Amino acid sequence: MSINPSMLKLGQVRSAIRETFEYGNRRAAEIGRDNVFDFSLGNPSIPPPEVVSETMLNLLRNESPVSLHGYTSAAGDYAVREAISRYLASNFQASISPDGIYMTCGAAASLTISLHALTEDGDEWIVFAPYFPEYRVFVENAGAKLVVVPPEVEHFYIDFDAFKKALTPRTKGVIVNTPNNPTGVVLPRSVIETLCGILKEASATFGHTIYLLTDEPYRELVYDASTEVPYIPSYYDATLVCYSFSKSLSLPGDRIGYIAVPNTMPQKADVFAAICGAGRALGYVCAPSFMQKIIPSCLGHVSDLETYRTNRDLLYDALTSYGFECVYPDGAFYLFLKSPTPDAKAFCEKAKEYELLLVPSDSFGFAGYVRIAYCVDTAMIMRALPAFKQLALSYFH
Amino acid sequence: MSINPSMLKLGQVRSAIRETFEYGNRRAAEIGRDNVFDFSLGNPSIPPPEVVSETMLNLLRNESPVSLHGYTSAAGDYAVREAISRYLASNFQASISPDGIYMTCGAAASLTISLHALTEDGDEWIVFAPYFPEYRVFVENAGAKLVVVPPEVEHFYIDFDAFKKALTPRTKGVIVNTPNNPTGVVLPRSVIETLCGILKEASATFGHTIYLLTDEPYRELVYDASTEVPYIPSYYDATLVCYSFSKSLSLPGDRIGYIAVPNTMPQKADVFAAICGAGRALGYVCAPSFMQKIIPSCLGHVSDLETYRTNRDLLYDALTSYGFECVYPDGAFYLFLKSPTPDAKAFCEKAKEYELLLVPSDSFGFAGYVRIAYCVDTAMIMRALPAFKQLALSYFH
Repeated sequence: MSINPSMLKLGQVRSAIRETFEYGNRRAAEIGRDNVFDFSLGNPSIPPPEVVSETMLNLLRNESPVSLHGYTSAAGDYAVREAISRYLASNFQASISPDGIYMTCGAAASLTISLHALTEDGDEWIVFAPYFPEYRVFVENAGAKLVVVPPEVEHFYIDFDAFKKALTPRTKGVIVNTPNNPTGVVLPRSVIETLCGILKEASATFGHTIYLLTDEPYRELVYDASTEVPYIPSYYDATLVCYSFSKSLSLPGDRIGYIAVPNTMPQKADVFAAICGAGRALGYVCAPSFMQKIIPSCLGHVSDLETYRTNRDLLYDALTSYGFECVYPDGAFYLFLKSPTPDAKAFCEKAKEYELLLVPSDSFGFAGYVRIAYCVDTAMIMRALPAFKQLALSYFH
Repeated sequence: MSINPSMLKLGQVRSAIRETFEYGNRRAAEIGRDNVFDFSLGNPSIPPPEVVSETMLNLLRNESPVSLHGYTSAAGDYAVREAISRYLASNFQASISPDGIYMTCGAAASLTISLHALTEDGDEWIVFAPYFPEYRVFVENAGAKLVVVPPEVEHFYIDFDAFKKALTPRTKGVIVNTPNNPTGVVLPRSVIETLCGILKEASATFGHTIYLLTDEPYRELVYDASTEVPYIPSYYDATLVCYSFSKSLSLPGDRIGYIAVPNTMPQKADVFAAICGAGRALGYVCAPSFMQKIIPSCLGHVSDLETYRTNRDLLYDALTSYGFECVYPDGAFYLFLKSPTPDAKAFCEKAKEYELLLVPSDSFGFAGYVRIAYCVDTAMIMRALPAFKQLALSYFH
């Protein structure tokens, strides 16, 4: 009897992403930062929109510090929740009242709190591969089993036959992430409609609500005017939106997001109460107060996405011209590239010979691809392209 | 199958403290804010020291926003951890290296993360009544049993006979909170020494480490030059310091604190890894980055405690002169008053007739007392004293 062994293991096992990033730092010390092409981390490389600093400075100068830095209620400052509710109504025609908004310390907190609120022993949560690896940690720590549905590899939407087979009477819910990490794919409306239709049918068949958690840190990060990111509560009543401002406002370290419980949610008051209970049990007293209070002025603002768009176009055009097969990324800041050899880990090792640091898709519960995070300086991409070309030539000569 | 019932219950049951506070708001709407004397909440009433705003403004003006608001490593920004390590060394002669400091979202996160890191099924954690009620929530949610030791009511230190009886082979650890919420008592060095001696003996007897979690949000809130707050890692190797800047810097809403794992901790690297694992499992990606980065400039600064000292002296002197029996509060911002009738809830109801809002000690796992939070405007105390006098007269006439 000493230490919790599963927590010890979680703390000791480094993720492949973090390993690659730290290899990059060591390599940079050896050969110079400019000679290492690190595409491992999903850390925003562009600054927040100016309204963020302006709002912070205004609040610091003009607000009472006792109130600015004081506790808010556990669910968050009511004026902030009202502002979010109004924003969702005007942008997505969503009916989500302020008492359905629960402010959180970012998307990871939104997910863990939602999962703890809903999960009972023996429950199953379904995710679609490739998936953000922390889903497994969050689902298992909430006491449920993670069920992984393999992808359809033409568009990386959803393999609906496989999905239907994964549904069981123990299915508590489904997690979707669109725009997607690691593929960059945005699920189109028709796919969302089919997904929600199946969920409605399964809820009726099994006689209980199947929840849909939508993990939305990348909602605003899309690059083509034609790309629509459907607002999922409009298609399915029992949706919990797990939102974060980390990427839209380039504030990932400051930990601010929310859970939105739509007015249409079955047993809405109970679901919200269970969220409050889970937040309390996990030690989240309230979301950071100062960060909450900048949100009303920042809603609708997004960091300047030109850099990401430029990076995406540069990389996608170049890498496909070198012979690589890539999933066309509508959003987020990831390019999903098919490994020219079935073993993506071996491909990543080969890439390292050209100082290219990529993450094998095995980390995301799916083999044979790599993730290239393009939230980096455009200049680094320019320097990296010859290395990608050499890497391609080593396979497609 | 629908919602987790224990989370639902946690979210639905309001604490007596919160109930009282909300009653106060309703009552203020009826008879005017100035006529309600609300002593229910432990929410700092004095602003942060000036260095807090100055540091925030400096960072916003001079630091790269991408780095200021970016992710730090999960354990926190290394420079911040170094600064805390140096501060603890110079102030408490503590040997706690930067790699033993884990930055958190405040004391509640420090506690939940520590408890999840260490607890295995069947473990027991000991607390001393009266105790902060969330300890029960945090301990039970980590999968352990809360064991409550009744107090000695002369000084509200520790009843060591009762404590020894509470120790079993299943004891994983003990939580102490000094300066104490709700009593305001600071445990003197001799009590800490006896406590740690018993823990060493019990660890040897049972053949495993018994941990000591010290919950320290009130460390700097003491009012007499003669009051020493012993630094517990100096007395016991297996101590985890769960610290928060909420009260010292009057930043409770901003959620910033740390866990300190001393160099003397048995299996230190494993304990730290398990803390990292628990933080990850609970959804704490990193402590708020901007808040972390103000800490090096703010270490050693404390909000101006004159208001709390004035309030304490005013209340203690007046209430004892009216005939009430109070525990002399060395620290924190709570006065613990013996109910003149054994039923403290009935006493609180009686106090309401005089618009005095107090919290019965039953909320803290102990009967017969009330907590008076004096982190309020001194002017409200002046207005409240005649009401306290009338309340006293209704009992001691």
